[in-house]
Parts: sequence; structure tokens; C-alpha cells
Amino acid sequence: MEEKILELIEQKKFSELKSMLSDMNPADLAQIFEEIEEKDLPVVFRILPKELAAEVFVEMDSDMQQLLIEAFSDKELREVMDELFMDDTVDIIEEMPATVAKRILKQTDANTRRMINQLLAYPDDSAGSIMTTEYIDLKKDMTVDMAFDRIRKIGFDSETIYACFVTDRSRHLIGIVSVKDLLLNSKDTVISEIMDENVISVNTLTDKEEVANDFEKYDLISMPVVDMEGRLVGIVTVDDAIDVMKEEVTEDIEKMAAILPSERSYFKTGVFDTYKARIPWLLFLMISATFTGAIISNFNDKLKVFAGLIAFIPMLMDTGGNSGSQASVTVIRSISLGDIEFSDIFKVLWKEIRVAFFCSITLAAISFGKLIIVDYFLMGTLKHEAHPYLEMLVVCLTLFFTVIVAKIIGCSLPIIAKKIGFDPAVMASPLITTIVDAISLIIYFTTATVILGNIA
Amino acid sequence: MEEKILELIEQKKFSELKSMLSDMNPADLAQIFEEIEEKDLPVVFRILPKELAAEVFVEMDSDMQQLLIEAFSDKELREVMDELFMDDTVDIIEEMPATVAKRILKQTDANTRRMINQLLAYPDDSAGSIMTTEYIDLKKDMTVDMAFDRIRKIGFDSETIYACFVTDRSRHLIGIVSVKDLLLNSKDTVISEIMDENVISVNTLTDKEEVANDFEKYDLISMPVVDMEGRLVGIVTVDDAIDVMKEEVTEDIEKMAAILPSERSYFKTGVFDTYKARIPWLLFLMISATFTGAIISNFNDKLKVFAGLIAFIPMLMDTGGNSGSQASVTVIRSISLGDIEFSDIFKVLWKEIRVAFFCSITLAAISFGKLIIVDYFLMGTLKHEAHPYLEMLVVCLTLFFTVIVAKIIGCSLPIIAKKIGFDPAVMASPLITTIVDAISLIIYFTTATVILGNIA
Repeated sequence: MEEKILELIEQKKFSELKSMLSDMNPADLAQIFEEIEEKDLPVVFRILPKELAAEVFVEMDSDMQQLLIEAFSDKELREVMDELFMDDTVDIIEEMPATVAKRILKQTDANTRRMINQLLAYPDDSAGSIMTTEYIDLKKDMTVDMAFDRIRKIGFDSETIYACFVTDRSRHLIGIVSVKDLLLNSKDTVISEIMDENVISVNTLTDKEEVANDFEKYDLISMPVVDMEGRLVGIVTVDDAIDVMKEEVTEDIEKMAAILPSERSYFKTGVFDTYKARIPWLLFLMISATFTGAIISNFNDKLKVFAGLIAFIPMLMDTGGNSGSQASVTVIRSISLGDIEFSDIFKVLWKEIRVAFFCSITLAAISFGKLIIVDYFLMGTLKHEAHPYLEMLVVCLTLFFTVIVAKIIGCSLPIIAKKIGFDPAVMASPLITTIVDAISLIIYFTTATVILGNIA
Repeated sequence: MEEKILELIEQKKFSELKSMLSDMNPADLAQIFEEIEEKDLPVVFRILPKELAAEVFVEMDSDMQQLLIEAFSDKELREVMDELFMDDTVDIIEEMPATVAKRILKQTDANTRRMINQLLAYPDDSAGSIMTTEYIDLKKDMTVDMAFDRIRKIGFDSETIYACFVTDRSRHLIGIVSVKDLLLNSKDTVISEIMDENVISVNTLTDKEEVANDFEKYDLISMPVVDMEGRLVGIVTVDDAIDVMKEEVTEDIEKMAAILPSERSYFKTGVFDTYKARIPWLLFLMISATFTGAIISNFNDKLKVFAGLIAFIPMLMDTGGNSGSQASVTVIRSISLGDIEFSDIFKVLWKEIRVAFFCSITLAAISFGKLIIVDYFLMGTLKHEAHPYLEMLVVCLTLFFTVIVAKIIGCSLPIIAKKIGFDPAVMASPLITTIVDAISLIIYFTTATVILGNIA
């Protein structure tokens, strides 16, 4: 399909191209447009029917949008902008350089411009920033028939018609009625009889992550947004809520990997921006890890006697780190799914301690077996040591305690972080690993001193 | 609100309770029901109006559902089941023990039972397993008015009425028409004139993750599911697609933390199941980490001379691991968002190498400064070494090379894993860390041998 289209462009067979493209889905078209050479883009875009063109435009990434806007005449720009929903217009303006944004605003009428500026003013993470202003509003004394007339009148420009919002004279949101309710009731039924007064709504300043969670919790397809006085000012639709969910997940995953979250996709982020997102945590964790080094330095004299112990440091550190990350990542995800709250901390601890106990026993036992079979008999590396069996005991005991401590720290830090207002996602693998590393070495050297101390 | 309700239950003020609960949202009610004592649950549930009761029932977790089913009479069970959509019924049956499942099936009529058994037979990860069979189907020669009649007739039982599916005589899906299209066209318009023949549909066996991605890509609120012959057999609605998205993200995050993915939420998973999900990777990574130990053993003699080098091992291993995880996690997420494909591997490598270069330079420079100021002058730990400046050089050079190698491995392994059919999420922090640990030590000891070799 894609090759055929590129071929038609190559051969300038525009009428054939037009009939082919007109039947396609906007999202697929936007994807294919990415393969088209920049110089051909405006020509091909102009082939599309007006409405489809606008839909494709919305699906494009901002670089391509900018390219097209710069190629558009003022009239063309106005035509595309007229077809867009308010939230999409605002998204596009936000991504454009100031000069392009100004040009877009110049092509809209005064009323729209005022609305856009208002939407642009909402904080980045708020419901206001993702809502649109095109929705169906009804009055409670309308009949079903009148409601349908209104839907027919303003429905073309409305992003969704399936939820209709009932407002009073001063535009306060007082009820909601679905098109399903309208269709399943007789024509002369009055809206106030069938509307649901128990409307779930959010405020313009509600965090957009919370809005997205409400969509999931209540199985919504749109959510009304009201201002501080309870007046309806816009709606959020489910497709935008899904985008928010995806963004938030990406952000969480980035934080869990010790990366500062970025807004743009991988290839759209420049090398220097990627560097800036990654270096702060790398530096912080590197400096933190030197404390672990200091622990080793303190034990240096003993390590010279029991040099065999050094070789187990990476295994102990890694296993501790992995055990801790498993607990922390599980808890972080459960917190963001709403399964774990601060009041659950003891329940979580009790569960993790039991899991840790079984993991510890298994790891220590298998490790002991491996030490005897591989390190002692097969490789013979431990045979040269003065007290091979005591050293094995030290390693296995350390493993046992490290895993238990790692799980306890891993599960409790995210919950505590959340409680004191930090993002729990930050308490994931890298930070937990650094903390657990230091602790595992302290356990290691303490155990070694207790068991091997009086020998050295 | 919640306390008020629990108080009313305590005081057995059921009529007051009834009027209070009847106005509430099913999702909120299900949450409150979790706080109610088990013995009160059936009583309170019976207070609810029939339709609301069924909606609340769907939102409950399976333990509570089972409790209620066991308290229900056959008649009550049938009433609740009659109100449910097919996909919810199937979900519930799947979670119940065999005896309860059998009892539910006994209360459904033969037709429904056949349908349920068919849905139960679809593979766990398929579109068939999440679809429902209640949808609006139209014929292409119907008029808009006839379509509305049909919607009014079967709309009550249909999960969504907003997308209507046009099928031919043998039930092949041939078009789609939205209620918006129906409303915005005159009554005598024929469906075939306004239907969109370019229907996006999936097969019953399509992976449900792919289905969820299509919802996001095409901004859908429902997706038709066809069988191998292209006959319409069900639809997936956006709320179920959102649930799939959340499940898949949780699974990915678990895999990235070296945990085998589980189906149930944190507290619903038993201690032993959690243990079983965590121990395989812990064991595998522990055994792998012993290779890192072997590298240290090989270098043991030299380490006795340059004992100062041991203290830097944790810092070098951690920084390498963190650098690698940053790259791998970023790439894994970009793969699952569809931003990175196998053909992008060189583009990714080129970007990561540049990012790594800047990170390396920064980390090595700051590390050098810290070594001189803290370790040499302030703490004096390095002063006792025979060649402090050469050791600093070894540490900083190792840091430089380790970070670059870590980023290269971190970014390429997930892409390669995906290409050869493995899950890229497995190539996240824990595995990358283990690999990078070994490599960083090899780099460390090689650099040390080259620079300090002829001195010892």
C-alpha cells in the first residue's frame, strides 16, 4: 500500500492518488506521510478532501505540521484550522515556534482566539489543558425531540455527541444524559426526567492523571470539566485520556530507570536533551556509590587476609539489588494502580518479609551447593583459602540477610516516599540498588568479622 | 460518605440506606462494599435496584463476587446474570472455582450458555477473550429511521450503541455507521449511502495488546471482531481496551524488574505465588553474577598489590549498570510505543554513542575532581597508595569506557531481542546490569594492567 502511494507520487499521478488516499484512515495516512519527501508533502496534502486533510493534520507530528503550515497560504491555513477541535488547535499552537503560533492565531476569529488563549493559560498538567470546548449542552426543560434538534444543529462541530450535558441558566452543570437515553425514550419526554443528576465531573485544575484514572474507574467516554463556580467550560474525551495514560506510564518508567522524564519521543529528543535527562541521576548515584567504596576501604586490611571474599562482592551486591528492585517496582506499580496505600505499609512489610524469607533460603541453599561443587571441588578456587568452609558460611549468611533487608527497604521506601510527598517511582531499581549495595557490604564485612574475626 | 453508609448498616436503617445507595455510582459502591463485613454484604446488596446491583457486581473483585454468588438463591443469581454483558459474564466465570462456574452456567438459557462456552474457548490473549456479543447490527438497505427502530429495540441490551455495524446476509461485516451519522442525516437516507466501508476490524485471534494499540492509534470507542471468514462475531469496547493497556504495562514493568508477570493484584497474590514469580530470575542472575566474581579471582594477585582499586569496584559497577539501564529502558519503552523498530538500530546506536560520550566525559571529569579533592587531599585514602595519580587515571578511564559500552549494550540488546522473537522488556535493568558488571570489571582490570602493569 505504502509503496504504491509513494510510486504514484513519484509518477505525479495525482487523480489516481486522490481516489486512493480519500478512502484511507487519517491515522494510517499520517504514518505514510512520514515517508513522503518534504518537498512533495504540501502537494500531496492539498489533494486530500478538506475534512480528511484536517484529520490527517491532527495525527501528524509537530515537525510535519510546522512544515505544512509554512507552506500554506493564509486561506489554506484558515481552512485547516476551521476543521480542528479546540483542544487539537491548542496542542498544535503549543508545539509551534512563536512566529508560527502568531500566524495561526491571526487566522482565527476573535471569539476562537479568546478561547484559545484561555485554554493556553491552564497549567500543563491540568484537566483544562487537555479539554476541548465543543460539546453538546442541553437545558432541563427541553424535550427529547428538542434535544435531537440541538444535536443536529451543533453536532457537526462537537467532538462527541454521545454524552450531552445539561446546564442551568448560568451554565452550571446540573445533569448528564446520553444519546442512548434520548433514543430509548419517547420524543416528548422532558430531559429533567431522564437526566442523571449524579454527574462525575472534574475541575479545570484537576491533575490530568487523576482525570485519566477516573475514565478507567468509571468506564467513561467523556468527562465534563467545570470551573471554580461549577460552570461547565469543556469536556475531556476518552482518546485524550488514553494519551494521558500512556504519557504518565512512560514518565513513570523513565523515573524508575533514573531518567528525568521528557515530553518528546525518542528520536525527537536531541542528543543534548537526552544527556541532560540522564546525567543528574548518574552523577548523584555515582557519588552515592563512593560511600560503598568507603566501606570496602575500611575493611581493606582484613580483605588482604581473606582475599577470597572479594570475588563474591559483585554477586552479593547484584542479588541484593535485584531483590530490592523486585519489591520496590512491584510496590510502585501497585501504588499507581491504587492497590497499595500508606495504611497498608505493615501488610506489605509482612508479606515481603515472608517472600524474602523463602527467596533467601532458596538463594543461600543453592549458593552453598554451588560453592561446594563448583568453587571448591571443580574449580578449586576456594581450596587455597585458609578456612574455605567458614568463608562459604559467611557468603551464604550474607546472602540470606541481604535479601531480607533488600526486600524490606525495597517495599517500604516507595510507600514512605509517597507519604511525604515524593514520587514513589524515584525509589526504583537504581536508588534502591545503591542503598542496598552499601548495606550488603556492611552485612558482609560484619558477618566476616564475627565468623572469621578471631582467626585473623 | 463511606462512614455514613457503614453506620446505617450497623443500625440496620435499610430504607434510608436504599435511597442513599441508589443515587451512587457503581464503581464507588463497589469500593465501599469492600469495607462492609462479609456477613452484611448479601443483605446490603439485595437493597440495590436490580440494574444497579448488576453494575456494582461487575465492578467487584472476584472474591466478593464468589461470596455473593454463594449467598444468592438460584433466582437471584439468574437475575444478576441476566443484566450482565456477555464479556463480563465470561470474565466472572473464568475467575470462579469449577463448582460455582457450573452453577452460573446452569442458570443461563441454552443459547447464552452456548455463547459463553464459545467465548471461554478463545485463547487468553486474544481479541475473542475480551469481546462481547451485544452490539447493534444493521443491514445496508435499511433507512436511518429503520436503523433507529432497531437501535430502540435492541439498544437496551447492547454495550455500546454509538457504533453500528452493517452486515450482509451471511453476517459478513461490510460497513460501519455511527449514531452521529444517523442523527445528522435525514430519516429516509439509506444506510449504504452513509456507511463507511473502510472498517477497521480485528480477528478473534488477534493479540489483545494489538487491539488495545489500535484503539489508541485510531481513537476508537469500539472495535468489531470478525471470525476467519470475515463474519462479525463481537465487539471490543474502549473500557476493556483500557484495561488491557493497564495490564500490559504492569506486565512490562514486572518483566523489566526481573519478575515473572502475574495476573492478580498485589494483595490477591499469595506469598508463595509471589515467591515463584521472583525466584527464577533472582537465581539466574545470581549464578550469572558469579562470572563477575571469577573475573575478580583472576586478578586477585594484582589486587593484593593495588588494594586501593578494590574500593572503586562498586562505584564502577553501579555507574555502568545505571547507564546501561537508562538506555535499555528508554529503548524498551520506545519499542512498545512503536517509535523504534529493528531498522532503526544504527540510528539508535549513533544517538546513544553521542549521549554516552557526553555522559562519560562528565562522569569521568567529576569523578577525577572528587578523587583529587576528597580521596587524596581531604580523606587522604589515596595518599598511601604507591601511585595515586595513575590509579585515579585507571578509575576515570574505566568509567569513561564502561559508560560508553554500557549504553551501547543497553540500547542494542532490546532491539535484537525483539528481532529474534524475545520480549524486549526482559533486557532491562537487572540483566543489563549483570552483563555490564562483568564488562566493567574486565575494562577496569585491563586498564589497570596496561597502566600499572609494568610497575607491579
